[in-house]
Amino acid sequence: MIIVMKTACQESDVAEVMLRLDRSGLKGHLSTGVERTVIGVVGVISAVPDLRERLELMPGVEEVIRISRPFKLSSREFKREDTVIRVGDVSIGGDQLVVMAGPCAAETREQVMSTARIARAAGASILRGGAFKPSTSPYSFRGLGEDGLKILAEAREETGLPLITEVLTPEDVELVVRYADILQVGARNMQNFILLDEVGRANKPVMLKRGMSATIEEWLLAVEYILSQGNRQVILCERGIRTFENYTRNTMDISAIPIIDKLSHLPIIADPSHGTGKWYLVAPMALAAVAAGADGLMVEVHPNPDTALKDGAQSLTFEHFQELMKQIAPVAAAVGRTMAGKRA
Amino acid sequence: MIIVMKTACQESDVAEVMLRLDRSGLKGHLSTGVERTVIGVVGVISAVPDLRERLELMPGVEEVIRISRPFKLSSREFKREDTVIRVGDVSIGGDQLVVMAGPCAAETREQVMSTARIARAAGASILRGGAFKPSTSPYSFRGLGEDGLKILAEAREETGLPLITEVLTPEDVELVVRYADILQVGARNMQNFILLDEVGRANKPVMLKRGMSATIEEWLLAVEYILSQGNRQVILCERGIRTFENYTRNTMDISAIPIIDKLSHLPIIADPSHGTGKWYLVAPMALAAVAAGADGLMVEVHPNPDTALKDGAQSLTFEHFQELMKQIAPVAAAVGRTMAGKRA
Amino acid sequence: MIIVMKTACQESDVAEVMLRLDRSGLKGHLSTGVERTVIGVVGVISAVPDLRERLELMPGVEEVIRISRPFKLSSREFKREDTVIRVGDVSIGGDQLVVMAGPCAAETREQVMSTARIARAAGASILRGGAFKPSTSPYSFRGLGEDGLKILAEAREETGLPLITEVLTPEDVELVVRYADILQVGARNMQNFILLDEVGRANKPVMLKRGMSATIEEWLLAVEYILSQGNRQVILCERGIRTFENYTRNTMDISAIPIIDKLSHLPIIADPSHGTGKWYLVAPMALAAVAAGADGLMVEVHPNPDTALKDGAQSLTFEHFQELMKQIAPVAAAVGRTMAGKRA
Amino acid sequence: MIIVMKTACQESDVAEVMLRLDRSGLKGHLSTGVERTVIGVVGVISAVPDLRERLELMPGVEEVIRISRPFKLSSREFKREDTVIRVGDVSIGGDQLVVMAGPCAAETREQVMSTARIARAAGASILRGGAFKPSTSPYSFRGLGEDGLKILAEAREETGLPLITEVLTPEDVELVVRYADILQVGARNMQNFILLDEVGRANKPVMLKRGMSATIEEWLLAVEYILSQGNRQVILCERGIRTFENYTRNTMDISAIPIIDKLSHLPIIADPSHGTGKWYLVAPMALAAVAAGADGLMVEVHPNPDTALKDGAQSLTFEHFQELMKQIAPVAAAVGRTMAGKRA
Repeated sequence: MIIVMKTACQESDVAEVMLRLDRSGLKGHLSTGVERTVIGVVGVISAVPDLRERLELMPGVEEVIRISRPFKLSSREFKREDTVIRVGDVSIGGDQLVVMAGPCAAETREQVMSTARIARAAGASILRGGAFKPSTSPYSFRGLGEDGLKILAEAREETGLPLITEVLTPEDVELVVRYADILQVGARNMQNFILLDEVGRANKPVMLKRGMSATIEEWLLAVEYILSQGNRQVILCERGIRTFENYTRNTMDISAIPIIDKLSHLPIIADPSHGTGKWYLVAPMALAAVAAGADGLMVEVHPNPDTALKDGAQSLTFEHFQELMKQIAPVAAAVGRTMAGKRA
Repeated sequence: MIIVMKTACQESDVAEVMLRLDRSGLKGHLSTGVERTVIGVVGVISAVPDLRERLELMPGVEEVIRISRPFKLSSREFKREDTVIRVGDVSIGGDQLVVMAGPCAAETREQVMSTARIARAAGASILRGGAFKPSTSPYSFRGLGEDGLKILAEAREETGLPLITEVLTPEDVELVVRYADILQVGARNMQNFILLDEVGRANKPVMLKRGMSATIEEWLLAVEYILSQGNRQVILCERGIRTFENYTRNTMDISAIPIIDKLSHLPIIADPSHGTGKWYLVAPMALAAVAAGADGLMVEVHPNPDTALKDGAQSLTFEHFQELMKQIAPVAAAVGRTMAGKRA
Repeated sequence: MIIVMKTACQESDVAEVMLRLDRSGLKGHLSTGVERTVIGVVGVISAVPDLRERLELMPGVEEVIRISRPFKLSSREFKREDTVIRVGDVSIGGDQLVVMAGPCAAETREQVMSTARIARAAGASILRGGAFKPSTSPYSFRGLGEDGLKILAEAREETGLPLITEVLTPEDVELVVRYADILQVGARNMQNFILLDEVGRANKPVMLKRGMSATIEEWLLAVEYILSQGNRQVILCERGIRTFENYTRNTMDISAIPIIDKLSHLPIIADPSHGTGKWYLVAPMALAAVAAGADGLMVEVHPNPDTALKDGAQSLTFEHFQELMKQIAPVAAAVGRTMAGKRA
Repeated sequence: MIIVMKTACQESDVAEVMLRLDRSGLKGHLSTGVERTVIGVVGVISAVPDLRERLELMPGVEEVIRISRPFKLSSREFKREDTVIRVGDVSIGGDQLVVMAGPCAAETREQVMSTARIARAAGASILRGGAFKPSTSPYSFRGLGEDGLKILAEAREETGLPLITEVLTPEDVELVVRYADILQVGARNMQNFILLDEVGRANKPVMLKRGMSATIEEWLLAVEYILSQGNRQVILCERGIRTFENYTRNTMDISAIPIIDKLSHLPIIADPSHGTGKWYLVAPMALAAVAAGADGLMVEVHPNPDTALKDGAQSLTFEHFQELMKQIAPVAAAVGRTMAGKRA
């Protein structure tokens, strides 16, 4: 931490800051430059809550600058090697490219079963599908609840594909853990800290989507909630951020993929369905994500998107999904990845 | 709802759309212009889930345009007269300007008591203070929990000021209801729909903060969750949105105040402490909010901001708060408001 | 400037950085903390182009942090007292609140004359109006050019109100200077550096609007172009920034008003017409700007907004403008301002 | 165009709107639904300036909705086949992937020559380099001017690579046309309409960068300025937009690539150097752009980035550029593209 004093600060201001540091068990390292007086802080800063904000309020202080990143357990500095998460036969975060596919929401047994079969046949290796759905309006479909989980579990049994499904609230974690192989925490819950604590105590991998206005730093801090509860199996998922552009539902931040890879040892997945909100943008953005180094994709597929109860506009038909899988393979190969699933 | 067909659409495309409407129990009203073929939809559209998205996927369709706003119970069309919410002696949403003041978080009995006394003496009419605190990092202070609620309740008793305090998770609603006069749902939880359902069943007014990347429409849809559960006592609170500007923590959207007043009958409060993140911007932005028509203000006050466990940088000292209250009175008067509290 | 080294940097990396500083005529001040090695830089940093970026590329360097603001001539550190700009009888930046009013674009002699008379009678003290209009589409109205300037000058003669009008391109500066009392540079040209150079050499005050995605720092750097050419008469104008919110055309950043007041000695004006894009938001946002400390307002007025060739939706009728002026006076008084114009 | 009336509108309001349309030479098509009264407008709407804004101001009108896109000459509806632009031996917009490489700014003859040679040897097919540089601060390097153009032209002669270079102001167009094969208009000038007019009259292809807060629609309207002056050789270039994320200089909007491909027949290029601002993100984002369907890339290369006078932090070394070119080839092949340049 570095304290920058104002050009016009008094000597007594500097003395006060040095005293404050001393009382907090820290040491100030004074440096008087042509531009400004600057104080470097030495000691265990994290032991003093909100030290930075407090110092910024002192007279004569211009700015206090943090020089360590606030996330720890998720950082490459903490763990240099990639974290690889195994779910059934699938490895997420290694050389393989993992495709998670399925409907946005479980609606009927038929819909889930047919989608799961097609997903597997086309080379997907994980089944996605929601039983608890967050919805902007209270008048929209909110999911089938436990009945949906049962249908999804049945599709898992039949196809052998591990299941990822969303959990919305701390009370439901125990229930969802019984059915899912990976717990998903959605974008709107990225800073639902009580839920993060709870999935941090679960014994299943967690995929945490980026909040639609979350910085990368905030996202990694949200991950830190899960990791610090003991659950070290966390996957990140980029799904678009909110910008002024209104042609797409969100602006998918492809650069988050190489940035996460640089800052963190955890795997990163891309969701071009939510990332764009339009089915005809899913394929080009999926290819872009793979080329940029994503460890996997999450794609919405529906037997009949125009009758879907949720997110039909961004869901692929079976035909489009099969075509996408054929397009992905050579791009994955071009960046040194093999496909995790086996095409029928 | 209006369906705009592509310039190059086929007659069969139009026929298909008309047929689909017919099967959904709706009627299409065809209009063939110089520019485009357009179909007006007549009937109970809300009975057909996601009709808009489905239609957009049909061949020949360029765009489907919604012509009703999706929120209902909160709208001026539903209820023309202002909703005025009474809490103790205070009326929120009427002619009075209501100031809610207090510490960001309850830290100690001393801190809460002294702040509450000063707040009342300076003319505040509601006490604010948090016992459950959301925090970006798991390593920061997260509040005193029920102990904090007890301290806050004691301050309420002594000063007679009603208490507003935050609830973070559905499980805690019952507990917080026992201590609070108004439940606060924070910005990060604006789309925590399970929590919204739960406070919608509570028998206390709820103040819902705008999410930091929420549009006004999404905010009013979140309100709709609460209203549709039966709780009609909802207050909105603008607290800044996220933009590219990084001088301030958030960009306070003052225009949300007159917009909410136009679209909705519910009261709107402004929080310049979170809205800016810097104490020296609180006073000018508080005055701006009052001039723009806010029904009240929420302001963070702390006996000693530079030792605050949370949000010290945006908290006012007692002196600054007293000065602010003096500045507010003439601006409130200039826009036809009286101050709700009584200055000692 | 401060150089933060990586946790895992080599001693030789530090030595290389120290050597580089030495060769650049600067001195490094080494500080080895618990967290990181940090090097404070002492010397005339501005003499070494892009030093920061270069240092960031060196091995072992984590980050290079600037500790001086990059704008100089516009800063409070350079000049402590408010700059007050006199135009005719009007002082901008002092105790008076200055209202600039008139049509978006000069369309006809009648329209300009009637608007100017009403503006003056209602208490405006400067006439605004455009002869060269930037327009998003090439198929829209682009202004009357010099004919428009002549009409505006005639209105200035008759009413005695000084004229502010926009200049779009360096070649037109000489022409516009002959007619205008204040040159306006619009939001889309905030970083048209050749134009900034040119108005910086003009002998008339310049009002520089904030670019719709400009940070406050970039805005003050654009001002710096004008000031550094010798023209010290610069007025800033906040007119809304671009955010995800789409209910309004822009999100007016009222907090820019107190921030500019803190960082700079130059006057700051608010434009609620462009800031919102909707006429019914102009009055509440104008009042908010005054309450937040703006030195003046710029407001679009039109005899018949629904036939305006440009920006009708955000223009006030004569009646609405007169009403607004009556509302402003008490708010201005409440924050210690007198009105610059005289109401008839 | 469709006019949506308010729920509570009067019959006389509807009559007034119908009358207004009639007087404007248009026809209203009335449709009375369960939800709202809606009026479809038939006739040559573009003949009536700002009709939409005017109608929105009439009593009883809720909203006026545009149903045609405002850009014409650049749209796929106007011209279905891809526009392919030939510059020397290179075709932009066809099957080939075109790489434009070179320094941000021409600094010295040596720097330009060595970079041009490396660029060609590695497979680039167009040389980029700036002689007129926009710079946020007036105290930074602003380019060598015509001397820079001469150096760049010399490099073009020697290597045979066509030259793309930026023009900043209308007065310089004639000069730059003498040296350049493609004129570049930068992001900050995307809405410098006078400059767009001028390059629209030039006899050379123009590459127009997206403004950093421009919507895709505004970008295509800016293109329309150039096209409507007669110059049909326009290339678009995505270079990142401004968002709240501050880890990168901009957020590169990869989805703009498939969107432009859908909406327009013009070629689209990606600039990952400006799009990210960090050299180590250039390669993954370049690959992503190619996978998403970009017609080419623009990349900054410098013999010695850490001594570059401009944008060193985002420039690739020769080694990194050579490596990038090797990585691009298989990704380009995977999406069916051949490389335009020939590797030595």
